[in-house]
Amino acid sequence: MPSLEVCLTPELIHLYPADGKIVVVTDILRATSCMVTALSEGIESITPVSTTTECRELQKLGYLAAAERNGEQVEGFDLGNSPLSYLENNFTGRKLAMTTTNGTLAINKSKNASELLIGAFLNLSVLSDYLKACHHDLLIVCAGWKGMVSYEDTLFAGALATKLGNSFEIGCDSAMLSIEQYANTNDDLLSAIKKSSHYKRLHNLKISKDIEFCIDVDRYALIPRLDHNQLVSL
Amino acid sequence: MPSLEVCLTPELIHLYPADGKIVVVTDILRATSCMVTALSEGIESITPVSTTTECRELQKLGYLAAAERNGEQVEGFDLGNSPLSYLENNFTGRKLAMTTTNGTLAINKSKNASELLIGAFLNLSVLSDYLKACHHDLLIVCAGWKGMVSYEDTLFAGALATKLGNSFEIGCDSAMLSIEQYANTNDDLLSAIKKSSHYKRLHNLKISKDIEFCIDVDRYALIPRLDHNQLVSL
Repeated sequence: MPSLEVCLTPELIHLYPADGKIVVVTDILRATSCMVTALSEGIESITPVSTTTECRELQKLGYLAAAERNGEQVEGFDLGNSPLSYLENNFTGRKLAMTTTNGTLAINKSKNASELLIGAFLNLSVLSDYLKACHHDLLIVCAGWKGMVSYEDTLFAGALATKLGNSFEIGCDSAMLSIEQYANTNDDLLSAIKKSSHYKRLHNLKISKDIEFCIDVDRYALIPRLDHNQLVSL
Repeated sequence: MPSLEVCLTPELIHLYPADGKIVVVTDILRATSCMVTALSEGIESITPVSTTTECRELQKLGYLAAAERNGEQVEGFDLGNSPLSYLENNFTGRKLAMTTTNGTLAINKSKNASELLIGAFLNLSVLSDYLKACHHDLLIVCAGWKGMVSYEDTLFAGALATKLGNSFEIGCDSAMLSIEQYANTNDDLLSAIKKSSHYKRLHNLKISKDIEFCIDVDRYALIPRLDHNQLVSL
């Protein structure tokens, strides 16, 4: 039976060799929720980069450029980190460059995976179905917040691990923790996510709408996959 | 209101400055359970050291010496990491030197705390009562297993955080996770701890007895505290 592990923050990634595993990166608020939304709403590809400098270079080459630091859009870029931006505008066919505080770092630290996928509540079921069919060792990497464990990412890991159920062997105690956290929600994700420090940090109206959007389970049926440093629809 | 944080493994300790905080170190299976037991059963002091070499030096000076690596007693030492050893023998008045795979490392990484205490299920209530009375910022450091998050240490963190209840403000998402994990046990610690990878690793009869002993909540009313590199009864 394939194993399922959860790395609670990129600070612990050295303890979880990704080689030969499928890695699902998640950053619920809001990088990976944005990625699923962007590709589902017509963006052609997403190039995740670590720095705003790299992001600006790609912007000069004609990419749409999204940059977020500490929850806010960085000046001079086209977009920040709100998934709603991709519904409010028509970006069909555009290539996107993206850098975020935590999410793009988690992706860059996981690049030696055999396959790197992007997970969010927005694509939970399609992702779960795909992973069950793959029958392959799985590592869920939570992006966290500046190295700290983040409640909403662990909650997603727990939701995904719960859906995968008996098809995987639980490979570490962190996976067990995330399953128990998710079990405590009784399917009320909004009440659960309000317990997170991230929710308390970002409390203006715009962000509240983002949060409600980010927990809209199975809104999309698309899985972003890394292919030659670009995320494209699987 | 003072804050309560939980550092899930010593690998994340750099994210939780301990300066000016009370730190509770926990390594349920079995270092801190041993420490509470040893002092309660008559040991005068415990000197936690990082290496077996340091432990042997103290042994030569007349200390009783306990050394564990990968769950087993290291050859040439008086004791391993079983709390039952302190009941089966009379060590009253002896000084003990101790090195373990994870627990002593967690202590050494937390030495800049304003006060360093040792926690286990064995002394849960007395510790909780003391911390409530202190009204001071608190960091619980879980020893984990070789850098990985460990189910049973997080479970203890959740039990302690639950007991501290409304006297502390939850300072990080890891603390919230541990509270939810503990809530899921419905006070059946043995069933809970059987989910841990540690339980699965150590499955011989002797260890089973150790585990049952380590979850004997409130068996003792003593708190080990670090004082000039020695743990003594508070």
